[in-house]
Amino acid sequence: MNKHVNKNLKGQESAAPHEVTTGPIAGSTKIYCEFAGLAGVGVPLREIALSDASEPALRVYDPSGPYTEAGFRPDLNAGLAGIREPWVAARGLDTIAGRLIKPEDNGGASGERLAPLCPAQRPLRAARDGQMVTQYEFARAGIITPEMIYVAHRENCGRTAALEGAGAAIADGESFGAAIPAHITPEFVRSEIALGRAIIPANINHLELEPMIIGRNFLVKVNANIGNSAVSSGVAEEVEKLVWAIRWGADTVMDLSTGRNIHNIRSWILRNSPVPIGTVPIYQALEKVGGDPLKLDWEVFKDTLVEQAEQGVDYFTIHAGVRLAHVPLTARRVTGIVSRGGSIMARWCLAGHRESFLYEHFGDICDIMRKYDVSFSLGDGLRPGSIADANDAAQFAELETLGELTRVAWDKGCQVMIEGPGHVPMHKIKVNMTKQLKECGEAPFYTLGPLTTDIAPGYDHITSGIGAAMIGWFGTAMLCYVTPKEHLGLPDRDDVKTGVITYRIAAHAADLAKGHPAAQLRDDALSRARFDFRWQDQFNIGLDPDTARRFHDETLPKEAHKVAHFCSMCGPKFCSMQITRDLRVEAAAMAGMAEKSKEFVAQGGALYVEAGN
Amino acid sequence: MNKHVNKNLKGQESAAPHEVTTGPIAGSTKIYCEFAGLAGVGVPLREIALSDASEPALRVYDPSGPYTEAGFRPDLNAGLAGIREPWVAARGLDTIAGRLIKPEDNGGASGERLAPLCPAQRPLRAARDGQMVTQYEFARAGIITPEMIYVAHRENCGRTAALEGAGAAIADGESFGAAIPAHITPEFVRSEIALGRAIIPANINHLELEPMIIGRNFLVKVNANIGNSAVSSGVAEEVEKLVWAIRWGADTVMDLSTGRNIHNIRSWILRNSPVPIGTVPIYQALEKVGGDPLKLDWEVFKDTLVEQAEQGVDYFTIHAGVRLAHVPLTARRVTGIVSRGGSIMARWCLAGHRESFLYEHFGDICDIMRKYDVSFSLGDGLRPGSIADANDAAQFAELETLGELTRVAWDKGCQVMIEGPGHVPMHKIKVNMTKQLKECGEAPFYTLGPLTTDIAPGYDHITSGIGAAMIGWFGTAMLCYVTPKEHLGLPDRDDVKTGVITYRIAAHAADLAKGHPAAQLRDDALSRARFDFRWQDQFNIGLDPDTARRFHDETLPKEAHKVAHFCSMCGPKFCSMQITRDLRVEAAAMAGMAEKSKEFVAQGGALYVEAGN
Repeated sequence: MNKHVNKNLKGQESAAPHEVTTGPIAGSTKIYCEFAGLAGVGVPLREIALSDASEPALRVYDPSGPYTEAGFRPDLNAGLAGIREPWVAARGLDTIAGRLIKPEDNGGASGERLAPLCPAQRPLRAARDGQMVTQYEFARAGIITPEMIYVAHRENCGRTAALEGAGAAIADGESFGAAIPAHITPEFVRSEIALGRAIIPANINHLELEPMIIGRNFLVKVNANIGNSAVSSGVAEEVEKLVWAIRWGADTVMDLSTGRNIHNIRSWILRNSPVPIGTVPIYQALEKVGGDPLKLDWEVFKDTLVEQAEQGVDYFTIHAGVRLAHVPLTARRVTGIVSRGGSIMARWCLAGHRESFLYEHFGDICDIMRKYDVSFSLGDGLRPGSIADANDAAQFAELETLGELTRVAWDKGCQVMIEGPGHVPMHKIKVNMTKQLKECGEAPFYTLGPLTTDIAPGYDHITSGIGAAMIGWFGTAMLCYVTPKEHLGLPDRDDVKTGVITYRIAAHAADLAKGHPAAQLRDDALSRARFDFRWQDQFNIGLDPDTARRFHDETLPKEAHKVAHFCSMCGPKFCSMQITRDLRVEAAAMAGMAEKSKEFVAQGGALYVEAGN
Repeated sequence: MNKHVNKNLKGQESAAPHEVTTGPIAGSTKIYCEFAGLAGVGVPLREIALSDASEPALRVYDPSGPYTEAGFRPDLNAGLAGIREPWVAARGLDTIAGRLIKPEDNGGASGERLAPLCPAQRPLRAARDGQMVTQYEFARAGIITPEMIYVAHRENCGRTAALEGAGAAIADGESFGAAIPAHITPEFVRSEIALGRAIIPANINHLELEPMIIGRNFLVKVNANIGNSAVSSGVAEEVEKLVWAIRWGADTVMDLSTGRNIHNIRSWILRNSPVPIGTVPIYQALEKVGGDPLKLDWEVFKDTLVEQAEQGVDYFTIHAGVRLAHVPLTARRVTGIVSRGGSIMARWCLAGHRESFLYEHFGDICDIMRKYDVSFSLGDGLRPGSIADANDAAQFAELETLGELTRVAWDKGCQVMIEGPGHVPMHKIKVNMTKQLKECGEAPFYTLGPLTTDIAPGYDHITSGIGAAMIGWFGTAMLCYVTPKEHLGLPDRDDVKTGVITYRIAAHAADLAKGHPAAQLRDDALSRARFDFRWQDQFNIGLDPDTARRFHDETLPKEAHKVAHFCSMCGPKFCSMQITRDLRVEAAAMAGMAEKSKEFVAQGGALYVEAGN
């Protein structure tokens, strides 16, 4: 199990790994920055060394966990180190025995077909009634938790450099009401959480977590979905899906597994995950009742919540906004209800003509989730599944209900984010954001895409990447990725990587456009490398050094070409960047050029040219 | 040469074809719709037959030429049929002998290294001084040309169905001042051209052209760039690049070849191209002077313009906006001048501290281009090459000059479009469009991307697809594609296809968002197919049926699964679409559900739900 295979270079192409991928991203070193306020803990960063001595090494945000440390040897049986253990231990929470595992938790799998449980041992905790436990409760009480301190420093990556003007980055975005400070303090984090504008999904039973924050005034985050396969060769393969997604930049991962062994596979994922894990508990509840939505009830759902909360799941998608009254609003849709959770609940409501048990028991759900600080991801069960259905009455009725539920969850002490569409043409995206902020009291928005057209199956990472960049700019806090296989099949390794990279592009484009004070540092570092023909730096600063290097080498494979002052597009004679460099030398030699230019403009009259840049 | 290999299915994966790709796109039939006003000519459309008898066959715009007809046998030596011959012949233009080919036209290639000239014979024509010849001149004179009639019908694809409500499409976009009529008439085309708001790039010596229109009140178009390779196995390979790009949806193609044999390869491309071909004549002019920008002069440039105009090139990129006074404005940029043409001209201006000969001879350039109706694509030689340089003084100074030149070209009777950036973060895109419309009198904008971040080499089709969709929505008439190899190497077949499909997504997302009256028909047809589990229809309606089918088959390869009422994402038990379908049956059986829902809402109070959808 814990036999380690370093797949850093060759292994990335492997289709069916049996071990997890480790080792640094090409050109990078994993570092941990210590800071005042939390002894013995550093926030993880990826440092990209540059070949030009005058260029400082570039530090970038890094959700990949210890897997990208040089020489890291994962022991999946033991799980990752529990960096939160001392923080959570200090809270005086009860250690509990926990719910017993039932055969139905694993879909009745037994004998050889039963995947083992992860043997890693952790203390299991839960809050008592009335005992403060969630980040929201601490924040409201004015208490700054270690998690808040940690994410504050984590978010500050690069800002010191920006503030010192090292990169000459200018944050001149349009933020649409977001207010991103120049420097993130722990107190700012506390304040944003207390206002409900941000969450730190951090179950007290997920001690391995490197805390991260989701909110409009922080870096835009990316979620990747994973799920078990019918033919899995082992639990390492399931953990590898997680490790692979975070390697390329997923900030959280949702485990959407169905079928057998869900419980036991989840134990391996959680014990080995440095990022928040989200789930949709109704999927497992449905498995427990043999797949028939009509057999669902509050008891089986409640039991599933407790089961998953004790395992350490950090956020639950809860489709409590799909009310009986909303269902008929979908009858004339082109694509009906496309959310699995939404359609399960709609069917349950309609069959008995009864109100959703999730809605009716919402207070009880809050009470359970609060005990472990499981965050809400209020599901958009009625999200549009086509351009034709975008922004319709069903979708917006549900969003209004989600606003109502947000206030209930806050009153109960829970952290909340809100899920959003789906399929939305560009001109209808902004109103989604505006309405979500208004209805849900600025709780963080977490959207799937949206896809801006329906006509490109096989390319929905792109149709949705367009919408994701835009809605991220408008204020969405986390973007749920879409892979090229969306609507068609199960994503493989390459699809997951393509989906994550596409969404990292969308998130970064959004950060730039919002005016994030340090976002442009990376663009500028890459552009300087490009202009200077520092090819290795250009590859390494990019989101995917391996692909950039491979693309370059396909045309100009020789090592010498990586220091050449031209590239394959124009060749040595035609290189515009080289011409510009020559031109700068000439311009410098020709004193007073800028002055002459100004005179020329002043005399010419036809043009007005601003002096300088 | 004319040995024909049908590569429709297997051949698409081939890396180095020696013949051109023919045969229909999977699931489609090429049709020609005849219409009143032009005898014996039909506009080309692609008709996608659907498996549901209640669904009308879907007709989509199709720039791929006869290559996608069933059974078409290309004869590259003979070239395509000259459908414009009778139209142009009726104009009373002089037939001329034409310029003699010089050795330097082919870079001095001789003997075995000299590629042959395409043997296809066409009458060579030019207008006399004062003789009306350009579409702009005809339009201004109130004359509707056959080209105008043709493009009017071509643009109307699908609108009849939309107007009749067959697809129940609702065009509710935000057009930002564009005014797209419900139905395009030849008179509307004439009026838009006369106002300078649209162009039909159509050299009188490119008789093989299927005319198309570029303008803000028409469908958003896509350009693909091709260029010769150092190791070309023959002229068929060069023609194949064109055929491959238009197969996937490129509306125009720019031939950016350099090096030897440029002239002769161009002859094959033009005689076999149904789409407008654009070039950057300064590239060939530079070849003729041995690659040294300082040796360029008006005479060699002028001679190159005549050479290419006589061959039938439909539009020329002319970097006449790079004036001496603008050059110093680039000195402090992060990435200087990244346009090849721009850097060549900047170097020329700076070396002798003299005004650009393109600017000084702009009237002469107009006179030459007018004689053949070569359209201007006024080049943005100072476009930003990085986020840091976006919207700077150099870029906008050039744009103002392009506005000045637009008015000169119009006065001379020429058609004009304007090239745009480049690298621009999302929040700075809109001002580009607004300023272009203002400075250039609403002449069509033709942009490269823009790339919304610099940090993803290897994925710049995506970084730029985001910007392209947005600027297309804001009013850009044609989007110049970017491939995954941008900044890294020469695109191969797969890269060209990925680039074209990505840009078709951007263009269609823009059409939807602008409120194009028929754009949503295709989305709706695909979404209905998706909801009905008509898998083959879903693949065929998409932009790339082959890839969609392949992705589906990777997970569920069996033929039976293509009629299955579920897919691999959820499996049979979990299918949300199937649940919704069951739910509709139940809802129909349960009379009065909608009424009950309304009562519920009226009583419940907490929610306001609009009745119906």
